[in-house]
Amino acid sequence: MLIKPGQLLAQIDTPEDLRKLEADKLYDVCTELRQYIIDHVSVFGGHFGASLGVVELTVALHYAYNTPYDRIVWDVGHQAYGHKILTKRREQFHTNRQYGGLSGFPKRDESEYDTFGVGHSSTSIGAALGMAVASKQKGEHNRQHIAVIGDGAMTAGMAFEAMNHAGVSDSNLLIVLNDNCMSIDPNVGALKDYLTDITTSPLYNKMKGEVWNILGKLKKVGPHAQQIASTLETSLKSAVLKQSNLFEALGLRYFGPVDGHDINHLVSVMEDLKNIPGPKLLHCVTTKGKGYKPAEENQTKWHAPGKFDKVTGEIKKTVHTVPQAPKYQDVFGHTILELAKQDEKIMGITPAMPSGSSLNIMMKEMPDRAIDVGIAEQHAVTFAAGLAVEGMTPFCNIYSSFMQRAYDQVVHDACIQKLPVIFCLDRAGFAGADGATHHGAYDIAYMRCIPNLVVSAPMNEAELRNLMYTATKYKDGSFSIRYPRGQGVMPEWRTPMQELKIGTGRKIKGGEDVAILTLGHIGNYVVDLGDRFKEAGLNPAHYDMRFVKPLDEEMLHEVFTNYSKVITVEDGCIMGGFGSAVAEWMLDNGYSAQLKRLGIPDEIVEQGTQIELQRYAGFDHEGIMNAVMEMSDVKKLIK
Amino acid sequence: MLIKPGQLLAQIDTPEDLRKLEADKLYDVCTELRQYIIDHVSVFGGHFGASLGVVELTVALHYAYNTPYDRIVWDVGHQAYGHKILTKRREQFHTNRQYGGLSGFPKRDESEYDTFGVGHSSTSIGAALGMAVASKQKGEHNRQHIAVIGDGAMTAGMAFEAMNHAGVSDSNLLIVLNDNCMSIDPNVGALKDYLTDITTSPLYNKMKGEVWNILGKLKKVGPHAQQIASTLETSLKSAVLKQSNLFEALGLRYFGPVDGHDINHLVSVMEDLKNIPGPKLLHCVTTKGKGYKPAEENQTKWHAPGKFDKVTGEIKKTVHTVPQAPKYQDVFGHTILELAKQDEKIMGITPAMPSGSSLNIMMKEMPDRAIDVGIAEQHAVTFAAGLAVEGMTPFCNIYSSFMQRAYDQVVHDACIQKLPVIFCLDRAGFAGADGATHHGAYDIAYMRCIPNLVVSAPMNEAELRNLMYTATKYKDGSFSIRYPRGQGVMPEWRTPMQELKIGTGRKIKGGEDVAILTLGHIGNYVVDLGDRFKEAGLNPAHYDMRFVKPLDEEMLHEVFTNYSKVITVEDGCIMGGFGSAVAEWMLDNGYSAQLKRLGIPDEIVEQGTQIELQRYAGFDHEGIMNAVMEMSDVKKLIK
Repeated sequence: MLIKPGQLLAQIDTPEDLRKLEADKLYDVCTELRQYIIDHVSVFGGHFGASLGVVELTVALHYAYNTPYDRIVWDVGHQAYGHKILTKRREQFHTNRQYGGLSGFPKRDESEYDTFGVGHSSTSIGAALGMAVASKQKGEHNRQHIAVIGDGAMTAGMAFEAMNHAGVSDSNLLIVLNDNCMSIDPNVGALKDYLTDITTSPLYNKMKGEVWNILGKLKKVGPHAQQIASTLETSLKSAVLKQSNLFEALGLRYFGPVDGHDINHLVSVMEDLKNIPGPKLLHCVTTKGKGYKPAEENQTKWHAPGKFDKVTGEIKKTVHTVPQAPKYQDVFGHTILELAKQDEKIMGITPAMPSGSSLNIMMKEMPDRAIDVGIAEQHAVTFAAGLAVEGMTPFCNIYSSFMQRAYDQVVHDACIQKLPVIFCLDRAGFAGADGATHHGAYDIAYMRCIPNLVVSAPMNEAELRNLMYTATKYKDGSFSIRYPRGQGVMPEWRTPMQELKIGTGRKIKGGEDVAILTLGHIGNYVVDLGDRFKEAGLNPAHYDMRFVKPLDEEMLHEVFTNYSKVITVEDGCIMGGFGSAVAEWMLDNGYSAQLKRLGIPDEIVEQGTQIELQRYAGFDHEGIMNAVMEMSDVKKLIK
Repeated sequence: MLIKPGQLLAQIDTPEDLRKLEADKLYDVCTELRQYIIDHVSVFGGHFGASLGVVELTVALHYAYNTPYDRIVWDVGHQAYGHKILTKRREQFHTNRQYGGLSGFPKRDESEYDTFGVGHSSTSIGAALGMAVASKQKGEHNRQHIAVIGDGAMTAGMAFEAMNHAGVSDSNLLIVLNDNCMSIDPNVGALKDYLTDITTSPLYNKMKGEVWNILGKLKKVGPHAQQIASTLETSLKSAVLKQSNLFEALGLRYFGPVDGHDINHLVSVMEDLKNIPGPKLLHCVTTKGKGYKPAEENQTKWHAPGKFDKVTGEIKKTVHTVPQAPKYQDVFGHTILELAKQDEKIMGITPAMPSGSSLNIMMKEMPDRAIDVGIAEQHAVTFAAGLAVEGMTPFCNIYSSFMQRAYDQVVHDACIQKLPVIFCLDRAGFAGADGATHHGAYDIAYMRCIPNLVVSAPMNEAELRNLMYTATKYKDGSFSIRYPRGQGVMPEWRTPMQELKIGTGRKIKGGEDVAILTLGHIGNYVVDLGDRFKEAGLNPAHYDMRFVKPLDEEMLHEVFTNYSKVITVEDGCIMGGFGSAVAEWMLDNGYSAQLKRLGIPDEIVEQGTQIELQRYAGFDHEGIMNAVMEMSDVKKLIK
């Protein structure tokens, strides 16, 4: 299905085409661009509210600045649909987020207009500052560098680190603060309150000008008043007003707040800003989902709604005739609440992912014990460690790829101190359509090398519940549980919880010749293959290892004593991962089996459905089948 | 040598003893405590300036607060010597930083007064906030929680993340900002300028009070002036003054600045603060090295001076009669300058470690091209990625254990995008006296799983230079070079630089029976063992692998074709490290040798000299010798 662009949009293949238009056409361009995004996402799915919210900003930036010579860096990047459509990619846009198609995020390989690849938040200021400092170094003094960052992303530490550096650089950097009070969920924290103060108090920001006006009037009252006014003016100038704004305190010139949906005003402000040297910040107030009413009204739901009926605003859902297995995240969400009801020490922490992690289920019932700390993974972990010090049992739920942001905190604040912090790593393994930046590929490798840390992965919902329960009983260090995006396999998932012995796996079936050791959900693929194995005359044993660390040594002795051909399967990087742990153990224990490790290869894998990516990586059903056949010397491979 | 405490200090074994004293004795306690630290460090070495700077703060905190019931969290922790001496550890203090002795940092295992183990910076606010929230949850509303953090540590993102959370919590949290304008080197960035403004402008901070005074006076001038004054007051109140302070903008009540060396005033301020609920910040101005003149005058040098003559202030240096090998860090420092002189694209970045990394050598000659970004590892990496986007060749020098702070940035901002950023990981392997928090144990494991990243380690100075040179030529991804703390082996180290073929090792010698594969500096131990091997009738082959990724496959084929017993040696974690990479390769390629991996075991190893720790871990000279003998079936082991 080809989406037809509006009349103006149809003529814009590049920002240069846009810049040829008269300014009075820009309003219509925005309308058409917004409609194009609505038309597209309603049919193909994807991120929605964020891109609608920056339609005017996008058009203004490409109109006012000389892109790609001038550098625009989008933070997070899920708001860059308008940018992609205006930069030579309108006609491929229907492939967005699909296997082999356009990435849902800016990506350097894809376009010279995508200056910096992104997916995680809060990188834009540092990256744009790097570009700005490089430009200066190269003598390209007229190049402009613009970071577009949301108020949610602004709470992450690295944004602050970058501002602290930018404020003392004399680089050509403009930070556009896209203030919509939202992350995926409503933004939280002191900074948000501060921004709200600035933007909602009718007095707040006009104050500086007004104060000077009043002082001027005062001087006319009489000589005594004049003298006092002068003293006051000196005091205020030298002290209070000079840095009355948080950003100015950090050395950035502050402009705004401006209406981020007033295209003509935005263009004229940007034209002015081009002539103001040094680091500066433009505060734009926008509405996430702007221009599509249902999205404005429920911004979290419409962050990435899937396909929908653009007329009625009805989000399309697949109708199931049989009971479905729940999402792992929901099993987590319901189970932590269930546990917390029985144990008052249990607390839940999420860095800005209440709905993505389903911690919102607990937040609703126990707002004091389930806390959203904002986009702040580092703080989330150290805060959890602080809770653990005082005897609490914190569950810190962070997507696998975002946990990379808190690696030092896991090592230094939780594990070195043997604190009982429980890490739940959602979206572990291939994340699907979000692509390279979001795959939880490395966590097994980067977690298993840390001492005092249990590393585990459930094969199904019941195991997730058991592992969560077991983790609450474990006080001898930290405990990590990884599970994938998406559904499990048990429609009847509310099983009674059992404490597992740490470091024990589960023998699913014995067999001959080949043993398959799986970690996590991917083990179900092996179960699924049961009949096909039989048909092919194969009878591999299957063990659900459950723990990467500690490994189930008793089970491994059984495996390596009985099988000389072993396959490991994991939805994680092959290099250094679960299979690598098995290899180490095998050699340390003097076994010499043939070992084949299936998992994510040592390359950057782009987006696609999870199954497409697993197939590419060779550990979908076919991949596992092939591996068993190869090892079993069955010559005829499945194609 | 036993250090004698002063008369008052001799009576203080616990803070409770301290609290029994009259307030008028505290000045003398501070004098004695300071002297005790000087006496101690001059003889035993250790961190110095930081502890001297917080003598009064330390005494005031333990006097005003009910420790350990009230929680003091020291940031970084190298300033906690006074704290340790006052909390039951005076008599063991001579074991500080030694193998089996006290840790140089707060450590939970060591004392109930050490609420949170530390070593890396900027964790205190988050940890203390966690404790405060837990206390509230448990109904312990009278417990106080105090984070003591330097202005340098305040620039790291996680401190900001924690403040953003603290500002909207109603927890019992006091942040004591210990503002001495220093990290190890002078602090940098916009925040530092801001704090300097507050503390050095005679007007700045008294302004609020003064403005109200003037407004009061104004009202008396006459009715017209009164009216204007009222309008002004309203404007100021509702807007500017309300949040004229950066910390107040973040929801923290701000107090100060106060003189951090005025013990009696500090105590009285703290007594007052106990009665003010909610999150608050006390800004204390201190001098690093306070009370010891040479340390006040050269704060970087006296951060951790080693042993010194306390009377003359002369730092003791070993006199060498033969030329010494340089420190690896200095080889880095001189070599990057040498390279930068030939290639204008080369830039250097350090997060607050100019002297520790020796980047200061380049900073001095090329201040525009060698940049200290403050304690901000995340930003350092993403900023470097931004530079690389514009064609620069950035060297980003970060200690191995601090690189854990920038893990996501290495993955997401550098490697996914294949940007040519060069990471130099100093202090890789056992760091020595700094202990558990500072060992660079995990980097090989957490780096080698990342695609598009070359992972390497030089065996000596010439190799470091060659790797650095090679890295500047490599444009197909990022490049990491790890090297240890301390000296190399080549007094004549200024060798001509050669480009190495990526992924090639060096055969040092052939042999029989056993092959030893080493990575990095530790390979010199094997060379050292040459004669002893001979004496023992052993003749192991030795390969300096140089690259963990990509591995030298040709060399590995040679090794595994010719040797059935292979030992890997690395100064890094065994789990997932270099030896693990060799194990993976060996199994993937169908070899079945006996493989023994030597390295850092899967446990938290505390402080000691590097050689003591390597001995403990079994990969010092004796450990390697033993491993070869064991493998060679030589029964008589070296003791």
